[in-house]
Amino acid sequence: MLGRLNHVGIAVRDVKAAAEIYRTAFGAEVCEPVEAPQHGVVALFVTLPNTKIEFIQPLGEASPVAKFLARNPDGGIHHLCYEVPDIIAARDDFIARGARVLGDGEPKVGVGGALALFLHPKDFSGALIEIKQV
Amino acid sequence: MLGRLNHVGIAVRDVKAAAEIYRTAFGAEVCEPVEAPQHGVVALFVTLPNTKIEFIQPLGEASPVAKFLARNPDGGIHHLCYEVPDIIAARDDFIARGARVLGDGEPKVGVGGALALFLHPKDFSGALIEIKQV
Repeated sequence: MLGRLNHVGIAVRDVKAAAEIYRTAFGAEVCEPVEAPQHGVVALFVTLPNTKIEFIQPLGEASPVAKFLARNPDGGIHHLCYEVPDIIAARDDFIARGARVLGDGEPKVGVGGALALFLHPKDFSGALIEIKQV
Repeated sequence: MLGRLNHVGIAVRDVKAAAEIYRTAFGAEVCEPVEAPQHGVVALFVTLPNTKIEFIQPLGEASPVAKFLARNPDGGIHHLCYEVPDIIAARDDFIARGARVLGDGEPKVGVGGALALFLHPKDFSGALIEIKQV
């Protein structure tokens, strides 16, 4: 069963500049940027009344976000993150339904400390899906 | 001041097929598709615990979603819709901050009957933004 939309991930070149637009134009609450070398990103969360925006910028040469920005130079909406109560049960259910898990298939500790993994966009209407255990 | 994330718009070739994935894999509540000729789309809303997904497919030759799908054949995340209490005040505030409003700048009645307009993605980190009066 699908949980809350934890956040929308938006890839940008500069998370602080992107968040500043949300702070000034939208009056949104902006967190400090966090480096996540294991994911190759710097992440910065913006709090909305019912969910969050996660701005991500590339960290390191092999960052997957760098490839996204090469295709989308102005930045763009990168992924949707849904909450699940049990990530192993959720992963196995998705695999049983034919969805492909990215990477080695094992959950990784994401930004903020929760276990997360990504599902292939071709299996979800072209949208890259992150599921996070919350 | 920014309101709730009303929905995430995902462009697809077939809204029913896309929603069926959310219904079966996620157990999400799926609404009936609605034709919105004024926007050139068929829209179908999927209810999440804290927001909604709006699947949109092209309707008619001049649909802006057809152009998006030409660039993104598998579909993809198309826009974010934020709620505002007063769309004219919000529009004028965005314009004063240098953001560009798409079309003729006047709000249109969107799917579901609320007034809505779109802001240029180049002004919002590459993300097409819809604001909706709620």
